[in-house]
Amino acid sequence: MLDVVVIGAGPAGMTCALYASRAGASVMILDKGAPGGKMNLTASIENYPGADMKGPQLAYAMYEQSMKFGAKMDYKEIVSIEKKDDYFVVKTNKEEIETKNVVLASGTKERLMNIELEEELTGRGVSYCAVCDGPFFKNKDVAVVGGGNSALEESLYLSTIVNKVHLIVRRDVFRADEYFVNKINECENIEVHFLKKPHKIIEENKKVAGLVVEDSQTQELTTINVQGIFPFIGLDPLSELVKSFDVTNEQGYVLVDENMETTVKGLFAIGDVRDKTLRQVVTATNDGAIAGQYIASQLR
Amino acid sequence: MLDVVVIGAGPAGMTCALYASRAGASVMILDKGAPGGKMNLTASIENYPGADMKGPQLAYAMYEQSMKFGAKMDYKEIVSIEKKDDYFVVKTNKEEIETKNVVLASGTKERLMNIELEEELTGRGVSYCAVCDGPFFKNKDVAVVGGGNSALEESLYLSTIVNKVHLIVRRDVFRADEYFVNKINECENIEVHFLKKPHKIIEENKKVAGLVVEDSQTQELTTINVQGIFPFIGLDPLSELVKSFDVTNEQGYVLVDENMETTVKGLFAIGDVRDKTLRQVVTATNDGAIAGQYIASQLR
Repeated sequence: MLDVVVIGAGPAGMTCALYASRAGASVMILDKGAPGGKMNLTASIENYPGADMKGPQLAYAMYEQSMKFGAKMDYKEIVSIEKKDDYFVVKTNKEEIETKNVVLASGTKERLMNIELEEELTGRGVSYCAVCDGPFFKNKDVAVVGGGNSALEESLYLSTIVNKVHLIVRRDVFRADEYFVNKINECENIEVHFLKKPHKIIEENKKVAGLVVEDSQTQELTTINVQGIFPFIGLDPLSELVKSFDVTNEQGYVLVDENMETTVKGLFAIGDVRDKTLRQVVTATNDGAIAGQYIASQLR
Repeated sequence: MLDVVVIGAGPAGMTCALYASRAGASVMILDKGAPGGKMNLTASIENYPGADMKGPQLAYAMYEQSMKFGAKMDYKEIVSIEKKDDYFVVKTNKEEIETKNVVLASGTKERLMNIELEEELTGRGVSYCAVCDGPFFKNKDVAVVGGGNSALEESLYLSTIVNKVHLIVRRDVFRADEYFVNKINECENIEVHFLKKPHKIIEENKKVAGLVVEDSQTQELTTINVQGIFPFIGLDPLSELVKSFDVTNEQGYVLVDENMETTVKGLFAIGDVRDKTLRQVVTATNDGAIAGQYIASQLR
């Protein structure tokens, strides 16, 4: 029986594996994709301290390091997690793995605009993280898509960096706190486009050169010249696997204590999938270290 | 007036400067020593994800990166922090600096054994962090000095890695939880030396080769052959500067909320100086990112 199965090989999961294995635990990371998670989708990560490099490069550096102390990784899709008396059975599409602890590090998935070129141009003008990528658009024009708190907050953030923010809102009102709405109205370089929805991305040299929006009432199409497009129409935690354990909040994020453990003993959640305020590589690695070290200490 | 003064240029302080300045805040880091904090005292940091390198090298990489977005650093000793209506006055030995926010990132100081060669051999056999440096002593013998919970816990941790742990205890009993005492007694490769105190370090080739201990009753000296010495006789938070704000716990660690803010608006604490369970580079950078991003968001 393994000491720990980590589900998801992003920065949180890899750090958990590093800490737990270095402290003597047997660890298996499972992911259906390449190690690195969303780091692989980020052109350049300039706010992870000490490793100012390209996303995939940081992903690979973390992967190599996390495997140095005996942790293993396998490419598997997970079907279910079952709790037995004092251990878990993790079922993949091919086998059953017994483990004393399960760490969910599965992250979140951005809700897509579902328009053409969206996925191809992610990291080439389309970004789902203003904190990560905003500074790349200094003095340029960008579009933010969405009408909720996060779209407004990110627009305000981007307005302090870029030349102009076009805020594209599907309805004729915001669905956000008055605080943010007032701030948006006061901000001189944010232009709000109500009743518009993204229709098509304009591409030039494999980069974003504009966004065509459609009027929800007249169906009229308008082209807005922007170099960046930031959709903030929602994030969904990938927490289906632990739904039956009743450890998630209304939005599906996993609730944990200071050791990253849920109310189910031996079941942990780290990184973007857990309920927290700031979702960054540097906060993900923090969670992984805490869970990994704690799990190893409990085994002794 | 500055937006943020960060006190202490360790990983927490530098990350706070990185995040706050990248989000548009004016930031000054003050430290009386070189940037990097305790990273500069650690030969090799193998558990900071993505940057598997020597401590001073990681310190320098973080420093360069934290200065990229307009933050400044100055070498100053701080005399006092005073709160005015909605800002602070930070007094150094030379000047007064006005700032909207103060972030204490001053870390902790290890209580020393106060014996000869202790400071010279720190990083060359003398270590104050079992999690950080334990794996360097695989299959070797080490001494742990101390009789409290942390000395016992670290001895148990080290016992899973090293050949043998000599636990040097000044009194004739432990001052620790029964849980740890039982574990120590059960552990085959931990030998407890009661009524002994560190007297002298034996040096060979600029590395630790042994520890001479003195019997507290007979004053008899005994040499124990060890390659590593881990004193765990206490850590003290460097929180004197905020003592008057009544934001520390009994041990002097600073209490903060999820944004790293104390009960005094605009006064933050991050990294080792705050009340937390795991003190590591990776948890320090986490704190810095959260505080830096939050402070910048409050300025907008």
